[in-house]
Amino acid sequence: MTRETDEHHMSHALRLAARGNGSCWPNPAVGAVLVKEGRVIGRGTTQPGGRPHAERMALAQAGDQARGATAYVTLEPCAHHGRTSPCAEALVAAGVARVVGAITDPDPRVAGRGYAILREAGIAVSEGVLAAEALEVTAGFLKRVSRGLPFVTLKLGATLDGRIATASGESRWITAPDSRRAVHAMRMSHDAVLVGSGTALADDPDLTVRDMGALRQPVRIVIDRLLRHSPQSRLGQTAREVPVWLLHGPEASTGAQEAWREAGAMLIPCPLRNGQIDLTAALKLLADQGLTRIFCEGGGTLAAGLVSAGLVDELALFSAGALIGAEGRAAFGALGLEHLADAPRPRLISQRPSGPDLLSRWRF
Amino acid sequence: MTRETDEHHMSHALRLAARGNGSCWPNPAVGAVLVKEGRVIGRGTTQPGGRPHAERMALAQAGDQARGATAYVTLEPCAHHGRTSPCAEALVAAGVARVVGAITDPDPRVAGRGYAILREAGIAVSEGVLAAEALEVTAGFLKRVSRGLPFVTLKLGATLDGRIATASGESRWITAPDSRRAVHAMRMSHDAVLVGSGTALADDPDLTVRDMGALRQPVRIVIDRLLRHSPQSRLGQTAREVPVWLLHGPEASTGAQEAWREAGAMLIPCPLRNGQIDLTAALKLLADQGLTRIFCEGGGTLAAGLVSAGLVDELALFSAGALIGAEGRAAFGALGLEHLADAPRPRLISQRPSGPDLLSRWRF
Repeated sequence: MTRETDEHHMSHALRLAARGNGSCWPNPAVGAVLVKEGRVIGRGTTQPGGRPHAERMALAQAGDQARGATAYVTLEPCAHHGRTSPCAEALVAAGVARVVGAITDPDPRVAGRGYAILREAGIAVSEGVLAAEALEVTAGFLKRVSRGLPFVTLKLGATLDGRIATASGESRWITAPDSRRAVHAMRMSHDAVLVGSGTALADDPDLTVRDMGALRQPVRIVIDRLLRHSPQSRLGQTAREVPVWLLHGPEASTGAQEAWREAGAMLIPCPLRNGQIDLTAALKLLADQGLTRIFCEGGGTLAAGLVSAGLVDELALFSAGALIGAEGRAAFGALGLEHLADAPRPRLISQRPSGPDLLSRWRF
Repeated sequence: MTRETDEHHMSHALRLAARGNGSCWPNPAVGAVLVKEGRVIGRGTTQPGGRPHAERMALAQAGDQARGATAYVTLEPCAHHGRTSPCAEALVAAGVARVVGAITDPDPRVAGRGYAILREAGIAVSEGVLAAEALEVTAGFLKRVSRGLPFVTLKLGATLDGRIATASGESRWITAPDSRRAVHAMRMSHDAVLVGSGTALADDPDLTVRDMGALRQPVRIVIDRLLRHSPQSRLGQTAREVPVWLLHGPEASTGAQEAWREAGAMLIPCPLRNGQIDLTAALKLLADQGLTRIFCEGGGTLAAGLVSAGLVDELALFSAGALIGAEGRAAFGALGLEHLADAPRPRLISQRPSGPDLLSRWRF
């Protein structure tokens, strides 16, 4: 096989992997492609909830044809016995002749043992094909395993002068319908959607994915130190259908805690830092629950807090073709910088129109 | 000739025309291409200062070959006798067989008479080829002639949250060197660069075009009601080399007026409106002086004033990959909107990286 052929098939596997982001947690979204004599004979993506794994799906599709085939996997096949036998052993049992992998699984139960099982069985293994792209697709899982934190995408929608509302608070329809659809697609590729209590109180959002054929709805999370948001809200009334998690501080009343528990929400007590929820601690608790990718939709205070604490990985900025003026409300909160040199400086990774708006993505 | 061939050559002529923007005022920047038997035999752009016209340049290059050729002109050839005979007559005298024009010249001394002279001489005339593109290239001249106002491009450079400085005023190096070069190229395609007195006082800019091989430097204009800017500034010290125009109000001291006149600047007294320079009146005075394209570089108060008065045609927004936070200084001033529905809503026309920054262009 040439390098180009390997990259072509790995690229296919990466597209399959990306489809799984948002529905596989706590497991990584993996893609697998089985190729024999130049033909694709099996494709797999990790299934919602994290099982079956991608390799199982592809092997099942290929059946007996898998013997002698080449398997392309975006992440090292697992090596540990869980509810089922490890994927590395399944690839051996199916008689594949060669395995091409993108990256190694940092999970201490795997960490190179998956590739070792394959090699010991006489299978040719090539590692590191399109590794950079695979690191990107798998970023949430890798960050959770290596640092105990989820990958965080921050969405901001603002006018060209960085405003979200007039001075009087009028804020509807800043960004266009195309952008609201794009936001739903982004929600779907994340495990959870996160907002601050101010946004929850002001907008009474339901934070679900609509009209996208979502396989699994993202968990809906509110950082709400005092549990001010009402269990009678849209989130509260639907908490038994789609999970609602509330991160609160020690001062949240037991009455409010009880009412939210009644409504079906999960309560996660968090430590404070300078009188506010300690955001690093809060995100660690979310990673402990298995979340790998979190989509934060504001408001401006939470956005600035996350950026300030170095917790944001990507910024998705929807810029509406409008100007509100300096007396309008800022989309992004205070950072408390002493010097310009301390300003966070994310780098541009893409830009495109989103209907009449401009969507730019920036990586921290 | 097919429509495709005509559009191909007109597109060439439009590129030649665009090169003249910034150096031809008070005349329009026009492009002309002479084609014979499929070969380009002459090219012309209106020369710095507005003469010779593009047609003359192309005819001179073609010489005797012009007989029987097709002329592509981005604007109707002139019909009035000025310092020289009209271009329409020159095309007739050269014996061209056909003239393809993009748009009609709204100048009352032309306004269709150029095309009429050609037709009366038996020359085939096609009008309206790539008219939309020609309206774009010629926008400044057309706006001056039809509305008595210049085309205004507003440049803003800001962080992703719309800031230009920290709360303490630290503001150097918000945008990158690539963007500063792009700004110089933009200055060069405009007749004048405009700033408010706050920016002049804070930055002591020289507002020239550097390292671009500019044929003619843009006029440097400051709106400075009280003539607070010093004749000892960079602008003052270079006013005899590159024109400096100061728009001031009736309260500007005669001493300051005298000192600026001494330095070589031109003073333009302007009426006030609500205690500030009346920006519509000011821009009309600049159009009266012949300016067709003005590049405004701020600051935020002037930017908001121009947008508020509906005087801005295009916004060039350089977004730096940085966040300063809500306590930072806003790049764009107050608009005094009562309702969100009153917000100016420019439409996106292009977006591209500018080094590490994002340059988006919006049309009002």
